[in-house]
Amino acid sequence: MPESLGALASRFGCELKGDPDTVVSRVATLANADSDALSFLASDAYRPQLANTRAAAVVLRPADLELAPTAALVSSNPYASYARMAAVLHPPAPSAAGVHPSAVVHESAELADDASIGPNAVIGERVRIGSRTIVHAGAFVGPDCELADACVVHANASLVRAVRLGARSIVHSGAVIGADGFGNAMSDSGWVKVPQVGGVRVGADVEIGANTTIDCGAVDDTVIEDGVRIDNLCMIAHNVHIGAHTAIAAMVGIAGSTRVGKRCMFAGQAGVVGHVSICDDVIVSGQAVVSKDIREPGTYAGSFTAEKAGEWTRRVARFKRLGALADRVRKLEKGGA
Amino acid sequence: MPESLGALASRFGCELKGDPDTVVSRVATLANADSDALSFLASDAYRPQLANTRAAAVVLRPADLELAPTAALVSSNPYASYARMAAVLHPPAPSAAGVHPSAVVHESAELADDASIGPNAVIGERVRIGSRTIVHAGAFVGPDCELADACVVHANASLVRAVRLGARSIVHSGAVIGADGFGNAMSDSGWVKVPQVGGVRVGADVEIGANTTIDCGAVDDTVIEDGVRIDNLCMIAHNVHIGAHTAIAAMVGIAGSTRVGKRCMFAGQAGVVGHVSICDDVIVSGQAVVSKDIREPGTYAGSFTAEKAGEWTRRVARFKRLGALADRVRKLEKGGA
Amino acid sequence: MPESLGALASRFGCELKGDPDTVVSRVATLANADSDALSFLASDAYRPQLANTRAAAVVLRPADLELAPTAALVSSNPYASYARMAAVLHPPAPSAAGVHPSAVVHESAELADDASIGPNAVIGERVRIGSRTIVHAGAFVGPDCELADACVVHANASLVRAVRLGARSIVHSGAVIGADGFGNAMSDSGWVKVPQVGGVRVGADVEIGANTTIDCGAVDDTVIEDGVRIDNLCMIAHNVHIGAHTAIAAMVGIAGSTRVGKRCMFAGQAGVVGHVSICDDVIVSGQAVVSKDIREPGTYAGSFTAEKAGEWTRRVARFKRLGALADRVRKLEKGGA
Repeated sequence: MPESLGALASRFGCELKGDPDTVVSRVATLANADSDALSFLASDAYRPQLANTRAAAVVLRPADLELAPTAALVSSNPYASYARMAAVLHPPAPSAAGVHPSAVVHESAELADDASIGPNAVIGERVRIGSRTIVHAGAFVGPDCELADACVVHANASLVRAVRLGARSIVHSGAVIGADGFGNAMSDSGWVKVPQVGGVRVGADVEIGANTTIDCGAVDDTVIEDGVRIDNLCMIAHNVHIGAHTAIAAMVGIAGSTRVGKRCMFAGQAGVVGHVSICDDVIVSGQAVVSKDIREPGTYAGSFTAEKAGEWTRRVARFKRLGALADRVRKLEKGGA
Repeated sequence: MPESLGALASRFGCELKGDPDTVVSRVATLANADSDALSFLASDAYRPQLANTRAAAVVLRPADLELAPTAALVSSNPYASYARMAAVLHPPAPSAAGVHPSAVVHESAELADDASIGPNAVIGERVRIGSRTIVHAGAFVGPDCELADACVVHANASLVRAVRLGARSIVHSGAVIGADGFGNAMSDSGWVKVPQVGGVRVGADVEIGANTTIDCGAVDDTVIEDGVRIDNLCMIAHNVHIGAHTAIAAMVGIAGSTRVGKRCMFAGQAGVVGHVSICDDVIVSGQAVVSKDIREPGTYAGSFTAEKAGEWTRRVARFKRLGALADRVRKLEKGGA
Repeated sequence: MPESLGALASRFGCELKGDPDTVVSRVATLANADSDALSFLASDAYRPQLANTRAAAVVLRPADLELAPTAALVSSNPYASYARMAAVLHPPAPSAAGVHPSAVVHESAELADDASIGPNAVIGERVRIGSRTIVHAGAFVGPDCELADACVVHANASLVRAVRLGARSIVHSGAVIGADGFGNAMSDSGWVKVPQVGGVRVGADVEIGANTTIDCGAVDDTVIEDGVRIDNLCMIAHNVHIGAHTAIAAMVGIAGSTRVGKRCMFAGQAGVVGHVSICDDVIVSGQAVVSKDIREPGTYAGSFTAEKAGEWTRRVARFKRLGALADRVRKLEKGGA
């Protein structure tokens, strides 16, 4: 949806350098922009591309303004400003209100008139779906789920049972929310399944990535607070509690009953054991394993980085001889060399 | 489904302290229980909550009986006893027998009269489905699959082809069983796909988590024995064989043709390379990598735990200087200091 | 589909030892083969099984010919030759051309007459589907996707939006291609979603595993070149570019904007951070973390292997005392012992 630079500047509180009547119709990277495109510069790594961009305008920091060969929208937070403008230029495709004839909606479900239920979607017993919420093709919204206004559940996602989504939350394709947690009691005859009777409470403005799983609580609910962002293929186990505005990159696993604070960030493939507590404002590095409580904000790490296999093999061999090395030092200390 | 304490005690062989006519109607945690709730104490960590619980009754060990302010059901294995009682109080929601009109069932499929096929589910050629087995909405049961009695396939799960499920086995939403294994032969013109013609044999009383994948065998079958429990987002590659009652936590990957014994346990994000053998009664710690045969029962580990990034960075730097440190010790040993 | 050894030898350029009129009707492992089966020997580990096989014929290297008690098809690359022969013996089950009555196809979609759209599949706006391409049950092909000829999209896979598949590419069940990348800008009011407007371009002869996710580009496209093989449960983030014929084992994560060269191989659970570049012909070991550019072909590693937990714990303790050990060596060097 094309918009003028003047309108964008005014709506999002940016200073404009350039013609307010110039119209942009799409976003583009600095390198690939054409004359109808809005681009942005938010990272130093891309600054060299600024001089040669053919964008109509660039969203950038005050300090970069003098480098811009184009019109500019100046913001102290150019990435966030760009994000908001991009949403104007590229609104989501509209979904027709109403229930597609191929969808199956249980008679006990209550749907807002302007909700949209896509082809072959299935809505279960006692489900409630709010205004402007969209359930895409093939998605399943099981018994006792409640979706607030303006949510989006993408194609083939599954909200198994007793999942509540706050307003404007998004569930991507293939995500499974509310499946049984991994509750097993050992007995003489093998594992006994522990019934998982809790639900999942997801706050407002949450985004849940493709093929991520968030299990229902064993007894009480699993809780995801407002504004949390979870990437693809993450595992949030039963009774985990994630604080507001925490961001979790792909393939992170958080085991049962663990409590994560607000505004934390997890890099990809990190793991957290069960039953621990992580305070607010903690950053966990990629593939790190958190195995006990974290009580102090800051960054926590615990993985090595890959190097040439020969060198790595030598390092591991030295690591395995550490005990012997310490013995030799002890001997030297005793004058035994 | 409410039940009296007397009936629960008698059915599950527990000693009852308290009024056998007291009726409980749901389970609850010690902290959040009300007077109609059954709770349990199986872990020392929750013992402090026992004194203040308002539960109607608590399932607990003989040693905790004197601490209980409530009625108590005494068991040497309170977690398993609780699990069985919870299944009485919270039976799964009933599914209507028969085929939902929106489901598509191939004419060659044989379904028990009391099987339940949900909305928009698809049942393929030559499929056989046993008594009381439930296939939920949008699930796919492909050609030549055989589901024994009382199985549950949850919404949007896929049994691609030639998957046999033993009695009472459960497949959670989004799980994919029987997809092609990763078989590729390098040739001068790039990778050649190796046809994957085996199936998947799953025993009785197995549970397979949400978005987990179990590939079909390349030639012979992939095998999951009775009573195995697999959590979400696990990968079981082609021709893996998992022994009975092994439990596998989330995000564990087991590569092709590996054989895992009985009663093993894998913590989250562990990995096992292909073509190795792990004996019975092995425990593998979180994010550990098993790269060769394990012939002795016990616990195996191989990951570090996260710490403050600055300290971790220093440790890694020291690790990288290990060769130099060893050289210095060697020099000292030669009297060269 | 049975075939004679003579026909197989001639079609795939193998030397035949044995009766060209012998017919084989299926593949089997050396250990489990019967007299109608074709088997193969491509790995030294299985050579001991050759002497006792009851296969009708074995595909093998010239050097193994004299060990074969059976007919033999001799190839310098027996695994690739076997793969091609297996595809003759075990062709994929045919799918009826046309659109199943339960499928939902948008009126703006253009489908080849001989394309096959399975039960309850959904095809969106402006989709184009080529000749002989099969979309299986419950799969979703969203707006603006283009599938070339002879592709296969398996049951319950989701091509969310703007995904182009080259000829003969295969998407396994549960895979999600084209979902929004993880783009979030921090602002005073929390995370702002960055619209993800790029698409995904997948080349020809690509295979994408079950429950793998490949996100759409943020602005430009995510690109998977020809002949790439990706196993199950992998994460390919927005704007990643994977070079031709690279093979990626299960549970590998590649973060945003990273560029991977041609003919690379990633073992399971490896991870690559965002915005780095990996040259052609790189092998990354299991669970290794690539955190910076790799400019030289070769093998890169970075993970430890599991050992008995007691020994591992001692190693970690020594690792944590490395600073103290270095101090002691320094003291010795100063003559302070």
